[in-house]
Amino acid sequence: MDVKKILEQVSMGTLSPEEAGEMLKNLPYEDLGYAKLDLHRKLRSGFPETVYCQGKPDQYLADIFDTLYRENGEVMGTRATEQQYLLVKERIPGIIYDPVSRILKAEPEGKERKGCVAVCTGGTADIPVAEEAAQTAEFFGCYVDRIYDVGVAGIHRILSKREQITRANCVITIAGMEGALGTVVAGLVENPVIAVPTSVGYGASFHGLSALLTMINSCANGISTVNIDNGYGAGYLAAQINRLAERNCYTV
Amino acid sequence: MDVKKILEQVSMGTLSPEEAGEMLKNLPYEDLGYAKLDLHRKLRSGFPETVYCQGKPDQYLADIFDTLYRENGEVMGTRATEQQYLLVKERIPGIIYDPVSRILKAEPEGKERKGCVAVCTGGTADIPVAEEAAQTAEFFGCYVDRIYDVGVAGIHRILSKREQITRANCVITIAGMEGALGTVVAGLVENPVIAVPTSVGYGASFHGLSALLTMINSCANGISTVNIDNGYGAGYLAAQINRLAERNCYTV
Amino acid sequence: MDVKKILEQVSMGTLSPEEAGEMLKNLPYEDLGYAKLDLHRKLRSGFPETVYCQGKPDQYLADIFDTLYRENGEVMGTRATEQQYLLVKERIPGIIYDPVSRILKAEPEGKERKGCVAVCTGGTADIPVAEEAAQTAEFFGCYVDRIYDVGVAGIHRILSKREQITRANCVITIAGMEGALGTVVAGLVENPVIAVPTSVGYGASFHGLSALLTMINSCANGISTVNIDNGYGAGYLAAQINRLAERNCYTV
Amino acid sequence: MDVKKILEQVSMGTLSPEEAGEMLKNLPYEDLGYAKLDLHRKLRSGFPETVYCQGKPDQYLADIFDTLYRENGEVMGTRATEQQYLLVKERIPGIIYDPVSRILKAEPEGKERKGCVAVCTGGTADIPVAEEAAQTAEFFGCYVDRIYDVGVAGIHRILSKREQITRANCVITIAGMEGALGTVVAGLVENPVIAVPTSVGYGASFHGLSALLTMINSCANGISTVNIDNGYGAGYLAAQINRLAERNCYTV
Amino acid sequence: MDVKKILEQVSMGTLSPEEAGEMLKNLPYEDLGYAKLDLHRKLRSGFPETVYCQGKPDQYLADIFDTLYRENGEVMGTRATEQQYLLVKERIPGIIYDPVSRILKAEPEGKERKGCVAVCTGGTADIPVAEEAAQTAEFFGCYVDRIYDVGVAGIHRILSKREQITRANCVITIAGMEGALGTVVAGLVENPVIAVPTSVGYGASFHGLSALLTMINSCANGISTVNIDNGYGAGYLAAQINRLAERNCYTV
Amino acid sequence: MDVKKILEQVSMGTLSPEEAGEMLKNLPYEDLGYAKLDLHRKLRSGFPETVYCQGKPDQYLADIFDTLYRENGEVMGTRATEQQYLLVKERIPGIIYDPVSRILKAEPEGKERKGCVAVCTGGTADIPVAEEAAQTAEFFGCYVDRIYDVGVAGIHRILSKREQITRANCVITIAGMEGALGTVVAGLVENPVIAVPTSVGYGASFHGLSALLTMINSCANGISTVNIDNGYGAGYLAAQINRLAERNCYTV
Amino acid sequence: MDVKKILEQVSMGTLSPEEAGEMLKNLPYEDLGYAKLDLHRKLRSGFPETVYCQGKPDQYLADIFDTLYRENGEVMGTRATEQQYLLVKERIPGIIYDPVSRILKAEPEGKERKGCVAVCTGGTADIPVAEEAAQTAEFFGCYVDRIYDVGVAGIHRILSKREQITRANCVITIAGMEGALGTVVAGLVENPVIAVPTSVGYGASFHGLSALLTMINSCANGISTVNIDNGYGAGYLAAQINRLAERNCYTV
Amino acid sequence: MDVKKILEQVSMGTLSPEEAGEMLKNLPYEDLGYAKLDLHRKLRSGFPETVYCQGKPDQYLADIFDTLYRENGEVMGTRATEQQYLLVKERIPGIIYDPVSRILKAEPEGKERKGCVAVCTGGTADIPVAEEAAQTAEFFGCYVDRIYDVGVAGIHRILSKREQITRANCVITIAGMEGALGTVVAGLVENPVIAVPTSVGYGASFHGLSALLTMINSCANGISTVNIDNGYGAGYLAAQINRLAERNCYTV
Repeated sequence: MDVKKILEQVSMGTLSPEEAGEMLKNLPYEDLGYAKLDLHRKLRSGFPETVYCQGKPDQYLADIFDTLYRENGEVMGTRATEQQYLLVKERIPGIIYDPVSRILKAEPEGKERKGCVAVCTGGTADIPVAEEAAQTAEFFGCYVDRIYDVGVAGIHRILSKREQITRANCVITIAGMEGALGTVVAGLVENPVIAVPTSVGYGASFHGLSALLTMINSCANGISTVNIDNGYGAGYLAAQINRLAERNCYTV
Repeated sequence: MDVKKILEQVSMGTLSPEEAGEMLKNLPYEDLGYAKLDLHRKLRSGFPETVYCQGKPDQYLADIFDTLYRENGEVMGTRATEQQYLLVKERIPGIIYDPVSRILKAEPEGKERKGCVAVCTGGTADIPVAEEAAQTAEFFGCYVDRIYDVGVAGIHRILSKREQITRANCVITIAGMEGALGTVVAGLVENPVIAVPTSVGYGASFHGLSALLTMINSCANGISTVNIDNGYGAGYLAAQINRLAERNCYTV
Repeated sequence: MDVKKILEQVSMGTLSPEEAGEMLKNLPYEDLGYAKLDLHRKLRSGFPETVYCQGKPDQYLADIFDTLYRENGEVMGTRATEQQYLLVKERIPGIIYDPVSRILKAEPEGKERKGCVAVCTGGTADIPVAEEAAQTAEFFGCYVDRIYDVGVAGIHRILSKREQITRANCVITIAGMEGALGTVVAGLVENPVIAVPTSVGYGASFHGLSALLTMINSCANGISTVNIDNGYGAGYLAAQINRLAERNCYTV
Repeated sequence: MDVKKILEQVSMGTLSPEEAGEMLKNLPYEDLGYAKLDLHRKLRSGFPETVYCQGKPDQYLADIFDTLYRENGEVMGTRATEQQYLLVKERIPGIIYDPVSRILKAEPEGKERKGCVAVCTGGTADIPVAEEAAQTAEFFGCYVDRIYDVGVAGIHRILSKREQITRANCVITIAGMEGALGTVVAGLVENPVIAVPTSVGYGASFHGLSALLTMINSCANGISTVNIDNGYGAGYLAAQINRLAERNCYTV
Repeated sequence: MDVKKILEQVSMGTLSPEEAGEMLKNLPYEDLGYAKLDLHRKLRSGFPETVYCQGKPDQYLADIFDTLYRENGEVMGTRATEQQYLLVKERIPGIIYDPVSRILKAEPEGKERKGCVAVCTGGTADIPVAEEAAQTAEFFGCYVDRIYDVGVAGIHRILSKREQITRANCVITIAGMEGALGTVVAGLVENPVIAVPTSVGYGASFHGLSALLTMINSCANGISTVNIDNGYGAGYLAAQINRLAERNCYTV
Repeated sequence: MDVKKILEQVSMGTLSPEEAGEMLKNLPYEDLGYAKLDLHRKLRSGFPETVYCQGKPDQYLADIFDTLYRENGEVMGTRATEQQYLLVKERIPGIIYDPVSRILKAEPEGKERKGCVAVCTGGTADIPVAEEAAQTAEFFGCYVDRIYDVGVAGIHRILSKREQITRANCVITIAGMEGALGTVVAGLVENPVIAVPTSVGYGASFHGLSALLTMINSCANGISTVNIDNGYGAGYLAAQINRLAERNCYTV
Repeated sequence: MDVKKILEQVSMGTLSPEEAGEMLKNLPYEDLGYAKLDLHRKLRSGFPETVYCQGKPDQYLADIFDTLYRENGEVMGTRATEQQYLLVKERIPGIIYDPVSRILKAEPEGKERKGCVAVCTGGTADIPVAEEAAQTAEFFGCYVDRIYDVGVAGIHRILSKREQITRANCVITIAGMEGALGTVVAGLVENPVIAVPTSVGYGASFHGLSALLTMINSCANGISTVNIDNGYGAGYLAAQINRLAERNCYTV
Repeated sequence: MDVKKILEQVSMGTLSPEEAGEMLKNLPYEDLGYAKLDLHRKLRSGFPETVYCQGKPDQYLADIFDTLYRENGEVMGTRATEQQYLLVKERIPGIIYDPVSRILKAEPEGKERKGCVAVCTGGTADIPVAEEAAQTAEFFGCYVDRIYDVGVAGIHRILSKREQITRANCVITIAGMEGALGTVVAGLVENPVIAVPTSVGYGASFHGLSALLTMINSCANGISTVNIDNGYGAGYLAAQINRLAERNCYTV
């Protein structure tokens, strides 16, 4: 029984205020069924739900993609394998798989985008994480400017792209090893920088820990960090910032 | 000699192209003197420079505050001591010191603000870091909504503030110990969440490491992390996001 | 306006079900003021609220103790200093301070207890943590059997107390350095063992990390671990288990 | 020669008190043979012995299962492989293997259970650990309420299950990544919460270390932690607590 | 009542074998009072008990020293402060305090020693730990050869002492920073080497962790490690080895 | 258009100083295309670019080798696989692959070398890293003296090579496990020592962390450290030092 | 040229004291050739050289075994694979391989042993490390008493073996997970205890780090620690101690 | 008796070659007394010995300074306190103390220098470490170019100094927090870069660990790292490189 019905019964006198009070006590929690959750979530975040494919059982995965695709008219999954792609493809023939980013998605044609996010990497080995970030931001409505292999050991590389990164509403910097790219970029731009450490490196990089610490300790202003190799998280956050930056544009 | 003069001399024939080439070779780097830096920085970031007071020698400190105050008409320092406040006060009588946030600042009256940032803490011991964040965001032009002592061990506390945090352009969540507040908040709002781990705790909190790892590993979307106790960094970043969100408002 | 009043108005026809629905929508969250929280919390957990004194501002502290004491007729604080004791004493003259456990409390005389918790320590240096645990368990209604200085380097010591620890509804084992006491005890008893690592030790004890890892990795059955030096947490948990164990006793 | 015989001989004068003293000196230790151990252990803990299958040599394993099954009429092993299942099946045809929990067990039909333990997970990837916990608790006589995929990034999910978790004698919360579920749950219930960190996650989750630290640092009351992925340990401990809670029920 | 008396009563017929059996059942555990422990311990280890002074309450400390001194005719404490020395001196006027090793001891004159232990340090800052080791070994009956400031950065220093270290029954090597002394020494001698890491160093020495890891990873044969700064532990172990080495000497 | 052409046009009057100024403004950054980078880099560092083969996509790799080989007349790659060798060989038939060092290189015959670098290892398992270092130094123009298996657990081994290491302009010491070789060597020579920790070892060597800490904490003068297993980095740095040491030799 | 010849020439006047001084300057180092090393080492340590097989190239391995076997009449290698066994067997047909300990050895029949070392393990999974320790000690002349699966979670197990461990000249305790066995044993015996942490465990055992810390922090007297899984190191050290303990036995 | 005298006696026939051989056998080791060590050391390294003052006992310190000053005509100590300065000053009136670098030194006037070392810092808080490095390099004969406060968060700062750092024989880069300066500098120069992490920072800088990892993981060529805050070590190494670079200059 939902709130509306309870109130109607109180109004009609078939339920006393005391009885209704007891029934309402836990309602805002208990009355939430599974299907309702998703709609609520969409209302809350403004972005449709996505799928973290890694380790999802095969049967589950196809169902989840199918349900979300039918409901939202689009669907995106991250960290998908080739084999998962083939599986989902049987249900959603138009689904597309990118082996670099490992993103699996189906989108309507001509989806509108506005605002720009720049995605920079220190080296070429960081590109898979960068593509996860870039394609996530695109899925959530951003234009993306890819600026790859501009690590600070050859500082002229990022400097030569200064104009591009300055234009973006948000810059994602992705680097492994010593991970210093974010600090240099944050010193050059006025908009937020999201730093993504990657597990690229060896020895004392400790699978991305060194890069993570570098970014967390950045002495630049306007920089924050997400988990190692978390391109999706950076892309999502960049899309949120980009959406805020562009929200009043149509009123001009 | 600057670029313009070099080019005029080449045009007049008093300098050969070869000689000019040699002179121009290192110019974009060398031509930057100290005073120019600050102006350039202000142009780049849009926010005036601030002072990290911790460990600054006394003589230095007063000069830096004085210079920045005269140039920008306002100045802010973080992690200042009572003793540093007294020192700077001799030069800038109107400077104000807040012993909780340890912020030392002088601002013009009636400074304009727009847009709102919410600052939440898990407990009362996180308030000093929260005030550093809040006052930084205010200094850079935001309204701030303070929502303190709403840690997830009593989940109704943050839930009861849901409307407030949903309204903000950006939410800063500040917590020590297990540091789970950010994840819950990011699940409730549609705008970016900046998580600040604090060194509050004991034993296996390892001076904030536990909270930092919690935040970096958050399974919520739209959350990123700054250094332990780095209220300033969170406030600065929130102000950047808020500025983007509000930038087109006056054109309506 | 609270739920009861809303419902009465609906019943009286001064509020339509639709209007009431709107008002109730966010109620379970927004309607909770500060004082209400505590009552709700007490209902939830069955134990009155306590105060973590460390770092609490002086003014705050006395108010909190006073409020809780008046409401519950008893109050307990942990990690209190001598100076905090003197402060609170001005407001609650009968408050008692134990410098070993650093517990500050006021209780009614003749408070009922039932069921027994055993508190064991590896060495004498662990006693402050043990007393925090023991007095917490006592405050929440347990009898406590103190068995101190029975570390496993002299195994006969704990073996000679086997009967006592077997009788307890729950055993708290407290140890620093290598922290092996919990494993031996869990192998001897049939009831739950709560292990508390302490920061006692030096060198590679890393302020309790070594003991914590020992306890977490225990190969015994029926053991779990709380934070380093967290006597309060162990005492609280033991009191919960003891309450469960004793709950049906009076029905016999 | 056992104590009784020694004493009889002293009584009969065939052994002097001095000789007997020498013989008794080490007796309580040396007199324990292998077979006696198991019986003693069962008496001590009240639960039959189980088998940790991982890494056990094939020959050993079948013998151990067979012996325990014949002695106790039931047997349970954890972390078993498919191949180990086939091996043991040759000896105990009725043995059952669950590939999710990797539990291998043979139980009499209609085994009595009483009292309820709730097992909650943050995500679906935590389910294998949760099933190890749940089936262990069931093996040791509990009813289990499974509440999966209720992580705090979507806080309404666990809130909607509040009634269920409140009813349980003990709640096991299982989560990887930031692992904050336990704190929220412990804030909602009055009975003990056992937190199990899992190795689910990537990057800075450090194979469960992040979740472990979160749980150990929980600021909620009434929570303790077991090793990463240690579903068995949580299930065993929950069964101990449940047994205590239910022990006097039949006397009503 | 002790074993001897029980047996005498059985022998005299004043106690039946059955009654005696019941009394003896738990005896080896329960019958151990505080004073008895020490005697048993001395029998077990062959060395009298010592006192770890750090953090011991003042009242306790004097009693413990007094009791042990009266019982054993000698007493030794480690990590004592000047203030503790003055306290104990009131009870044992002949007690001697060494501020370098922080050892507090009273010994009979002309105590016999045999066999030799060598104690080497990498630098002069390691001497306090070395003296704790050396004086401990002397207290337990060894001659000690002190070879200080022979770190491997000037390899000729330890090489020039080769003959001395070869003669010792056991060599204790004590070093901070990179802690490589033990490996070089173990490569030169045929007897066991005990390595003691010290907290001497700064930066990445992490309070002795670096030296500890060096020693644990030593590729030399015949080396083992004790805790950081644990001179006492090394001295005790060396005395055990020395005792074994010398035990048959008098039979020649 | 490059700087030279711009200046010629200004000189010829076909470009005004103002127009040229605008074009030059961002030139040092923007005007750098891919090929130009390499030339600039070569000018800066004096050494041709090399290729880090690990993880490079196949198509990329062959192109990069080909381009660099044609431009510089020589090329070197590190961490190459057998399969990558075969791939590149199709484009550069004369390329040579060394499976020990995993270096892939093509050099002109009779390449000039001068000055000597010594490369020492603690054990034979360190040789792959040592060969990476040695062959890198040779590629950049050094003579290399290989001194392998001279770990400090048998100190006479390195001592017997004292003359050789003393002669070198720079000594590279490579060791895993406790990694103490560098300290001993730095104590014997007057020239710089570069220490390379290796991942050789097990248990508490933590994949080279122990050796890294040893080297960073070395109490010897004149020693510095590179990443775990980074033979290339050590070889490059040694070649820089050797070049400095030999730079004025021909003027004698 | 060796010292004797130099001195003879000085004596004969064919070499001046100055020339001889120059020649002698570096002699004690340079005069050591490879073959001499091994003899010297044997003289130093009293034990023949052994082979660490892991990672040794095939060709190398057979040569090393062959050389050592011919020289010493016996040879032992650790961490050997089945495949290495087959390889060496072609050269030394009588060589024996034990797949549990992974020891490969050839010994003369009827090799003399004296003195006893006890080897204890916490669980059955520690047996491979224990066998490496036991067989190493046997190879170096000890009798070994194997006491397996006596972990402290069932404390009666080790207590029932007290007499055996008390008899040994040295006790090796081997345990993973929480690794508490060594402390209990050291509290029961008077001779040295060598603790070996193993990588047995999961989750927060961190591949043996937890057990290592436990052992290093042991509050028992007379215990020291070797690297994780280093059975060989413990066996070698035990044999050294045993040799010292037995050295004067034959003189009785 | 030293080598020369022994040889003269052999030459004179007053000592037989056999006797002399015996005397010389251990000479290079045993004959080294304290004073002799220093002379040998000076011969080996080419630089006079210095004093690490931290923790040195007062009496010791003055003697050491006095001895070295008289022998070498100059002396330098690091990490000295004001109080140590006053102490040494009584013995060496001309000694100079710099409270920033904490260096205590006495040098002859007009000491010759050649070659240049650049010392760069990320911020002003790194200056104490930088001065230790700079003054050490000066003491050992280098000119030093100080380039402070050029951290990469404002990249133009270091770029504007490119010419200066390119001229140096060696560049020392000193930075705390994320420590990225070294990588950028190494990408700009052709000579070696020595990176010094500092303990400047807070939170996740972990007292310099973050900066250390950044530097060790640098993806630039030609960079190596010393311990946290080890300005002395960097200055010494730079002086060694500078000496090599300048050694042939006078022959031109």
